[in-house]
Amino acid sequence: MQKVDSLVSARWVIPVEPEDAVLPHHTVAIRDGRIIDCLPTDQAERQYEAGQHQRLARHALLPGLVNAHTHNAMSLLRGLADDLPLMTWLQDHIWPAEGRHVSPEFVHDGTALAMAEMLRGGTTCFSDMYFFPEVTGRLADRVGMRAVLGMIVIDMPTPYGSGPEDYLDKGVALHDAWRNHPHISTVFAPHAPYTVSPEWLKRVRVLADQLDTRVHMHVHETAGEVEDCVQSTGQRPLQRLDQLGLLNPSLIAVHMTQLTEAEMDRLAETGVNVVHCPESNLKLGSGFCPVHALQRRGIHVAIGTDGAASNNDLDLLGELRTAALLAKGYSGNPAALPAHRALRMATLDGARVLGLDGEIGSLVPGKYADLCAVDLSGVETEPLYNPISQLVYTGQRERVSHVWVAGRLLLNERRLTTLNEADILERTRAWQARIAPEDTHD
Amino acid sequence: MQKVDSLVSARWVIPVEPEDAVLPHHTVAIRDGRIIDCLPTDQAERQYEAGQHQRLARHALLPGLVNAHTHNAMSLLRGLADDLPLMTWLQDHIWPAEGRHVSPEFVHDGTALAMAEMLRGGTTCFSDMYFFPEVTGRLADRVGMRAVLGMIVIDMPTPYGSGPEDYLDKGVALHDAWRNHPHISTVFAPHAPYTVSPEWLKRVRVLADQLDTRVHMHVHETAGEVEDCVQSTGQRPLQRLDQLGLLNPSLIAVHMTQLTEAEMDRLAETGVNVVHCPESNLKLGSGFCPVHALQRRGIHVAIGTDGAASNNDLDLLGELRTAALLAKGYSGNPAALPAHRALRMATLDGARVLGLDGEIGSLVPGKYADLCAVDLSGVETEPLYNPISQLVYTGQRERVSHVWVAGRLLLNERRLTTLNEADILERTRAWQARIAPEDTHD
Repeated sequence: MQKVDSLVSARWVIPVEPEDAVLPHHTVAIRDGRIIDCLPTDQAERQYEAGQHQRLARHALLPGLVNAHTHNAMSLLRGLADDLPLMTWLQDHIWPAEGRHVSPEFVHDGTALAMAEMLRGGTTCFSDMYFFPEVTGRLADRVGMRAVLGMIVIDMPTPYGSGPEDYLDKGVALHDAWRNHPHISTVFAPHAPYTVSPEWLKRVRVLADQLDTRVHMHVHETAGEVEDCVQSTGQRPLQRLDQLGLLNPSLIAVHMTQLTEAEMDRLAETGVNVVHCPESNLKLGSGFCPVHALQRRGIHVAIGTDGAASNNDLDLLGELRTAALLAKGYSGNPAALPAHRALRMATLDGARVLGLDGEIGSLVPGKYADLCAVDLSGVETEPLYNPISQLVYTGQRERVSHVWVAGRLLLNERRLTTLNEADILERTRAWQARIAPEDTHD
Repeated sequence: MQKVDSLVSARWVIPVEPEDAVLPHHTVAIRDGRIIDCLPTDQAERQYEAGQHQRLARHALLPGLVNAHTHNAMSLLRGLADDLPLMTWLQDHIWPAEGRHVSPEFVHDGTALAMAEMLRGGTTCFSDMYFFPEVTGRLADRVGMRAVLGMIVIDMPTPYGSGPEDYLDKGVALHDAWRNHPHISTVFAPHAPYTVSPEWLKRVRVLADQLDTRVHMHVHETAGEVEDCVQSTGQRPLQRLDQLGLLNPSLIAVHMTQLTEAEMDRLAETGVNVVHCPESNLKLGSGFCPVHALQRRGIHVAIGTDGAASNNDLDLLGELRTAALLAKGYSGNPAALPAHRALRMATLDGARVLGLDGEIGSLVPGKYADLCAVDLSGVETEPLYNPISQLVYTGQRERVSHVWVAGRLLLNERRLTTLNEADILERTRAWQARIAPEDTHD
């Protein structure tokens, strides 16, 4: 008998590699935070002696979900101003609220709320783009969640800094502070081509090479921003990024709802990564990311929820359901983006886009044991002819029962082990009363 | 003090009339199954003496949801064959499975499963189109759910009957059996213009007038069926229905993803009702129903889940979220189909389309007390600036806590009071083993 730290046995293990595999009655063996084996449960019981053995009789066990684009702290603005034109929403509601309230405390409390929601929905890893990322880093370290911290760059001053030079200094300090951390890393996060001028994008390009990090940016989110760029410069934003040398395998381009065939070919040629945020794009009426056409070209496409302010949740299971449905509707092809491919987008492709696929994204020996278990029994999910199909098309995040990051149990029978839900709700309510006192009548 | 049967007090009452009203700390008073008052809770406590008083401190109380198009018994085929081209799905999987298995027992067990799922998701009323509707009627009567039973008509023989004449005889008998029932009614349900020949559609038209019932039919679901009709007859299906006299306020046209401007004008002129099934249309790649353009013309548009086989759930809260998001994405306008309008579609407009708005669909005195309560507290739904927005955009059906139909409590703290969940699951598993023995390895 070999000794391991823990065994997790499930009715079905869905390893994501190979893409559509479903392994009935299998067990994942974990030592030092990593998967060391994935084998039939009866064999596992003969072969391994474990300190802990979790048996999940009606559950699917899969890689923890990867939320490849979010603005965590904006959870405190969830539903603040819905159903408005984009610029009214931003200029009259979101930006003023941020201007008045964003602070390290806001980021701490909003990010704790977002982490609680994400962990309860099976998300183990997120890529965050928001102010005061050092606060997010300290919280992720304490909670044990896997995080990619955005090193924000934007031309204008904000409560977080005085301008691009200041942001880059803070970014480099952040990078130094978290380098070699087992579950926290950093990424440059210039806001968008229309809010960061070319000189600073060039600096980002050089620094990203020096520090060996990726560059995460909103690109071609709306038709309006593309038209504005064409009018003022004669070029589309992607052309400008190409000239600046930013189209390469380290770019993570978020949204991408406005793409020509030639642009998609160029993305494939240069190895750019894409993050699809279907619900935010729908809710803001931004357009449709041609996921199917990108994947056909071999481009990696991950899934993100965007911030809760434009979603209104951080439900990645729901998001991948929307992605799978929308790809079929948009292409008119019911075989487009099948369930197993959607699940791969939210796990292995998410890891690939973030540059973490050597460490997470599938259940193969050597990777970290970032796992989530979903109870697939009940009148909402049975009969059950295909567990992957049911996972994706019934999108039942409330049935996520257990979540592990690097082998550490962060959600146990739906209870958070490293975050205090009552405390988070109390702080959330206090922020609500400050942000919109008129809506908080008790 | 006036005597009533029960009072239900909630943190917010959302009456749907007026459309965007949110009444904080209000109470609904119920006598003989009907709403007799809706007033501030402190007043209600001075004015009414009730046998029962339910206090819901963190909940929204709203009209029960109306699922305007479903094939309940198909829940037994949920996820049987996903991600396939439409005709492969139908011809190689769904129709053969139905041919082998459809029977009164199949309909009983599948409908019980569907009712359990719908009640746990806040749906109090459904319009069903499936074989053996008398089985569905008896079950709805026993369970206490509000049902509109489709009187099926289709040219071909099925396990339910030998052909159109037989179906119509059975339909008329069904109508007679349930007339004047407090929560069960009937509707003619010819399958589609391409499966019911004109002579039988004319008969349906005459009988519907005689019996004063509506006519519920799949219309313009896919581009293919429209093209086929044009090729074989020189006309689009809607033109043919118009000539047959079927375009009138008693028609309930389901799907409607292929519509010209002129057709929409004609629908408005003739008072036709529409049911939008966004998730089924997406999943089968059928097209987009132009909800916003229809509503602008004053056409009533309800929401349906379609059967679970093409969805894969009967989650009306999720469905109205998809409808609200899709309308914005499809029109490119983030102000299209605001949350309160989406909620109206799933309640009052559903009732209007089914001809039941005198009885249900909003919380006004005189209507039946068909209600659902949703707990809006928690890290998935807070902060909470606008309860309607949160209800729609966070689509949390698992937070539905209580459901009443005509004042009778059918879901109590998420437990069904008139259906046995364990028994339903046992029967569901037995059907799964019969339908796809190869997928049922234990």
